[in-house]
Amino acid sequence: MPQAQANEVPRRSEKWQARREAIVDTSARVFAQQGYHATSLTELCEANGLGKGALYHYIRSKEELLAAIHDRVMDEVMTGADRVAATGGSPSEQLRLLGDELLDVIHRYPDHVWVFLHEFPALTGERAEQFRARRREYERRVEAVLRAGIETGEFRDVDARLTALAWLGMHNYTYLWLKPGGRLSARDVARPFADVFIRGIGRAQGTE
Amino acid sequence: MPQAQANEVPRRSEKWQARREAIVDTSARVFAQQGYHATSLTELCEANGLGKGALYHYIRSKEELLAAIHDRVMDEVMTGADRVAATGGSPSEQLRLLGDELLDVIHRYPDHVWVFLHEFPALTGERAEQFRARRREYERRVEAVLRAGIETGEFRDVDARLTALAWLGMHNYTYLWLKPGGRLSARDVARPFADVFIRGIGRAQGTE
Repeated sequence: MPQAQANEVPRRSEKWQARREAIVDTSARVFAQQGYHATSLTELCEANGLGKGALYHYIRSKEELLAAIHDRVMDEVMTGADRVAATGGSPSEQLRLLGDELLDVIHRYPDHVWVFLHEFPALTGERAEQFRARRREYERRVEAVLRAGIETGEFRDVDARLTALAWLGMHNYTYLWLKPGGRLSARDVARPFADVFIRGIGRAQGTE
Repeated sequence: MPQAQANEVPRRSEKWQARREAIVDTSARVFAQQGYHATSLTELCEANGLGKGALYHYIRSKEELLAAIHDRVMDEVMTGADRVAATGGSPSEQLRLLGDELLDVIHRYPDHVWVFLHEFPALTGERAEQFRARRREYERRVEAVLRAGIETGEFRDVDARLTALAWLGMHNYTYLWLKPGGRLSARDVARPFADVFIRGIGRAQGTE
């Protein structure tokens, strides 16, 4: 399984894991502020209060750090999608909940998501493949909910792939303005977005 | 007018203007491929087949080039918005046409739009201000069409600002997958997107 090896982290102590996670979070903030390519290893060491040797004890390369930031976001997003599927709700209900979950991640991880959306082209080789595979997996979850709704007749006979991309764009793009401590909560945005989208693909009474 | 000075280009011959535009286009491709920060002036010279002195004859700095790439996109987007306003169509019709125009720009200028959406944080000072002002101006156009539709009763009483952001996200995000020579034309995408969005904000018969 070459894809699994790319980001494989040798399992260490809980303390080691916690310290590594803190390094990932701090580095996400630094990358979000000044860009991945513009950030030197020296700056990452300073931000994390570690010497180079100590940093390498947790992270083997700058690109591994970038992959770990992506994984943090994708772990949260996929966990949310699993929770939604577990509810067994109708396609409309599930689509609404998927929006709640996705905006919640974007709202809680502004730096990680910024880096995720801006710097993914810097991932190479197996890490890039793994990233694309995880992203595609999430897109398929959204498409599956749309297909289920078309099947039950709740939704019009839309192009599920194209409609999933429209839904993703509408939600992902909030990373530019949906911020912790801002005027709007994730739910404040998710609710009207779901109203627009679900009415938009819904089978209106008596019109078709 | 400090904002106007930031990107002011001294008016020269048509030949000079055309050469400058070609440099902006070529540089957009280079920035899109390898990132703004990672691109050296030497690489820009090579891509444009010019020595440093000759390049400076057209462009005074890397950041001016980035601003010119942004301006190219915003010029096209605003020209499209003007065309839409000039039709005097209903709010629904205008929103549909705004989508056609925006996706047409994204489809025709994939490199410029990529750079526009990924590298705008690299703009500083007056250039950053001017960029934000132009972007905000376009957002206001979209909001105005939504408000007009709420006014006429064509649209539900949605939050025009939030709904404009939803619309922008849905359309802008196509830059990741809507490419020249791809399976889908700009219109193939704009039409179903408009169907979802306009139904989504439309006042459904008999339900309210």
